[in-house]
Amino acid sequence: MRLVIRKIRGMRDILPPNSTALTRITRIFRETASMYGYREVIPPTIESFELFALKSGEEIKKSMYVFKDKAGREVALRPEVTASIARMFLEELMAKPRPIKVFYIANCFRYEEPQKGRYREFFQAGVELIGSDSILSDAETILLLDEYYERLNLPIEVIIGNVGIYRSILGEERIGEEKQDRIIWLIDKGFLEEALREASGKASNPVRVKRVLEELSTIRTSSNYDEAFREGEKLLKDNYPAALKSLENLRKLLEMVEGATWSKIVLNLGFARGLAYYTGIIYEVKSPNINVSIAGGGRYDGLIELYGGPKTPATGFAIGLDRTLLSLMEAGIEISGEGSNIRVLIVPLVDEAIKLAMGILRKIHSVGVEASIELMGRSLRRTLSYASSMKYTHVILIGRREMEEGKVTIRDMARKTQKTVDTEKLIDEISDD
Amino acid sequence: MRLVIRKIRGMRDILPPNSTALTRITRIFRETASMYGYREVIPPTIESFELFALKSGEEIKKSMYVFKDKAGREVALRPEVTASIARMFLEELMAKPRPIKVFYIANCFRYEEPQKGRYREFFQAGVELIGSDSILSDAETILLLDEYYERLNLPIEVIIGNVGIYRSILGEERIGEEKQDRIIWLIDKGFLEEALREASGKASNPVRVKRVLEELSTIRTSSNYDEAFREGEKLLKDNYPAALKSLENLRKLLEMVEGATWSKIVLNLGFARGLAYYTGIIYEVKSPNINVSIAGGGRYDGLIELYGGPKTPATGFAIGLDRTLLSLMEAGIEISGEGSNIRVLIVPLVDEAIKLAMGILRKIHSVGVEASIELMGRSLRRTLSYASSMKYTHVILIGRREMEEGKVTIRDMARKTQKTVDTEKLIDEISDD
Repeated sequence: MRLVIRKIRGMRDILPPNSTALTRITRIFRETASMYGYREVIPPTIESFELFALKSGEEIKKSMYVFKDKAGREVALRPEVTASIARMFLEELMAKPRPIKVFYIANCFRYEEPQKGRYREFFQAGVELIGSDSILSDAETILLLDEYYERLNLPIEVIIGNVGIYRSILGEERIGEEKQDRIIWLIDKGFLEEALREASGKASNPVRVKRVLEELSTIRTSSNYDEAFREGEKLLKDNYPAALKSLENLRKLLEMVEGATWSKIVLNLGFARGLAYYTGIIYEVKSPNINVSIAGGGRYDGLIELYGGPKTPATGFAIGLDRTLLSLMEAGIEISGEGSNIRVLIVPLVDEAIKLAMGILRKIHSVGVEASIELMGRSLRRTLSYASSMKYTHVILIGRREMEEGKVTIRDMARKTQKTVDTEKLIDEISDD
Repeated sequence: MRLVIRKIRGMRDILPPNSTALTRITRIFRETASMYGYREVIPPTIESFELFALKSGEEIKKSMYVFKDKAGREVALRPEVTASIARMFLEELMAKPRPIKVFYIANCFRYEEPQKGRYREFFQAGVELIGSDSILSDAETILLLDEYYERLNLPIEVIIGNVGIYRSILGEERIGEEKQDRIIWLIDKGFLEEALREASGKASNPVRVKRVLEELSTIRTSSNYDEAFREGEKLLKDNYPAALKSLENLRKLLEMVEGATWSKIVLNLGFARGLAYYTGIIYEVKSPNINVSIAGGGRYDGLIELYGGPKTPATGFAIGLDRTLLSLMEAGIEISGEGSNIRVLIVPLVDEAIKLAMGILRKIHSVGVEASIELMGRSLRRTLSYASSMKYTHVILIGRREMEEGKVTIRDMARKTQKTVDTEKLIDEISDD
C-alpha cells in the first residue's frame, strides 16, 4: 500500500486512550476553574503577528507559525494565549466589574524540533485574573493550580519566585527593559554565566550586581522559608530598595499559601521565567517524574498598557495539558472516567429486527448506558468474538423467535451465560449486573 | 484609548454566555457519540494542502488557509475533518477490528466573507464509521445525529437522499467523475438549470438525462415516502439500473429510521451535497429557525482508496456547532448547565483571616460548590454590592471577632439575612438553602 498523503512532520494524531485521557484532564480543568468563579472564553487561533511579537520573548517569536492571509495581513497561529486575552480584555471586557476572571482551553502552535513532551501543536489550559494587584490574587491562582493537580492526584512541586526582584535590581543598575528581558531569559534558560556577563557589562555597579545576582541564584528551599528570606533581605537592603519590596511581597505570598496547598512549595529567589511580560510573582509546576515544567504563570502588570490600554494589573497561569498527561502516564496514575462500565452490543439476527433494535438502542441510552448495533453482518460466532475483544459486557440477540414472543436474548459476556427476557424488562436485567 | 492591536477581521472572541453554551453542546455531543460506542480522536489542525485539495470540492479549495511552513511544505489549516480521519485511518487504524468508530471535536478554518452563522474559524463535531458498507451503518449514524438534537431539544428536519442516484445516472451517461462532481456541486448550490445544461452537454442521451434529473429534483416529501419511491422507480427503471439500486438502498434506510427518530425525516430524491467525496446516502440537518444547514453527512466509499488505501466503505457526519448554537438561541431554547447554583464569595476582613479563607475555599469546593475569595480590597459595602451584581448567593465574612471565636458570618444574598455560625457547620449552612 502506497500512501499518497501522510501527516505533516511534527504533527500528531492523538488516539484513544490518550485522546480520552486528554479530554478528561481538560474537563477536570474546566470544572476546577469554574469552581473558582472563572468563566470560559474562546479566543481565535489566528491573531496578528504583532500581538505576540511585541512581548512574547525571543524563542517564541522565532518559532511562531507566521504567514500572510489572503488579504495580505501578517498573521500568526497563537503560540500561547495570554496575549490574546489581554487584547480581548481591551476590546471586549473593559467595562465588566473587576476582577475579570476568565479561563481558556486552546490548541497552540510552535515550530520547534519535535521531542518527547514537545509538539508543534499542543494544548494549553489557563486562567487570567485581570484588575487586581493584590498578592492575594496570585495566592488564589496558585491555589487553583494546586487544586487542579490534587484532583488529578499528581504529586507536584510549585516553584515560586518574584521576577520583580531581578527587574528592580537591573532597573536600579540603569539597565533598559529590553536588555532586562534578555538577561532574565538567559537566567531562565540556565545560562547564568552569560546573564551575569551581560548584566555587569551594562550595570552602573558591575561588581555589585554580579555578586548579588549570583548569590540570589543559590537561595532555594522547600522548608525553611524564613531563613531564605533573611538571606535575601541581607543581599538587597542596602542598595536595592525596590527589589526588597518585591521580596517582601513574595514573603506575604508564601505565608498565605504555606500549609494551604497539597503540593510541595519551593521558594526560589533566583527564579526567572522566559516570557518577557512577567513583572512580579512567578511560578512553575514540576512533576518529579518528567524533567520539564508542566505549568507556569505569574503576574504581568505591564502587558495591557503595552497594547494601548490603561495600566492594569493582571496575573494568571497556563497548564501544558500534553505534558501533564505525559506526567500522569509516566507516574502510572490512572485517569479514570465516569459513567457506567456496561457496554451493550445489539445484534438483529434478521432484517425485520432492525427497527426493534433501534428502539432498544435508544432505550438503553436513556438510562446512560453505552449501546450500539452490530453493523458488519458477521456470523453470530464472529460477532460474539468481536464483542468479547471489544470488551462489550452484554450482547442482545434479536431473532425471529424473540420478535414473535416480544422478548430478547441477553448474553452476559463475562459470565458466558444467556437468558431470554421480556423486552420490557431488558433495562432491569442489564443494570442489575 | 488607542488600541495598538485588534483581532483579525473575520475572527471572533467567544465570550460567556456563548462560550459556556458552546462548551455544553460540545460536551453533550461527546456524551452522545460515546453512548454509541464512538471513541475520540484528535487530528492535527495543520495538514498538507494536498489532503484537502484532492477531493474537498471547489469552494473549500478556494477558501482554504494555505501557507508554506518553515520547511517549505505547502500546508493548510483544516477546512473540515473527514479527510484527516481518512488519512489517520490509513496511517494508524488499519489493523483495528471493524467497524472503526471515531468521533472528533475540532476548530476548522475557511477564508470566506464573514456573515451570520459563518465564521472564518468555526467548530465542528463529527463521527466517522469506517469499514461497514451496510445501510444499517448509515441508519445508526442518522440515529445518533437525531439523538444529539433530541438531547438539545432542538426541533430539526433531516433531509435524506442518495447521491449515488445522480452518480449512477451520470455514469450511465458516460460523464466522467470530475464532471460529475461539478454537476452535483451545481445542484447542491441550487443552480439546477446550469447543472442540467452541463449534464446534457456531455451525456450520451442529452434529452433523457435532462428530463430525468429535472423530474427527480421535484420528488421531496416528509410523509408519503412510498409514493415518492414509486415515482422514482418509474423514472429510473428502464435506463438506469444502478441508480435504481441506489434508490432501493435509500428505501431500506427510510424503512429503518421511519418512526425511530425524534426529528422530522424528509425524503429528497433530488438531493445533492457539495463535498465531492460523497458516493451514497447523504443527509443534512435543517433547523426551522435558521436558513442554513446545521449538520450533514453521508457515505464516502471512495475516499480511502483515493488516498492510496484499499477500497474501504465509510460513512459519517459533521455538526456545525456554531450554527447549532445559533439555532438554539434563535429558538429561545435554554442550554442549561448542571451542578449547584450556589456561589460563594469569601471575604477576609483582616489579613490574618486570609489563611482561614483559603481553607474554607477548598472545603466548599470539595462539596462541589463554587467559591472564590474577594480580591479587590474593597469596602464591605462595595463588596456586597459587587457580590449582588455578580449573582453570588452567599458571602462569607471573616473578621477578627469571628476568627477568635472559630466562627464565620454567612450572608444570604437573596434573603438579605446573615448569621454567625461555627466554621465546622459552614457547609451544612450553605447546602441547606
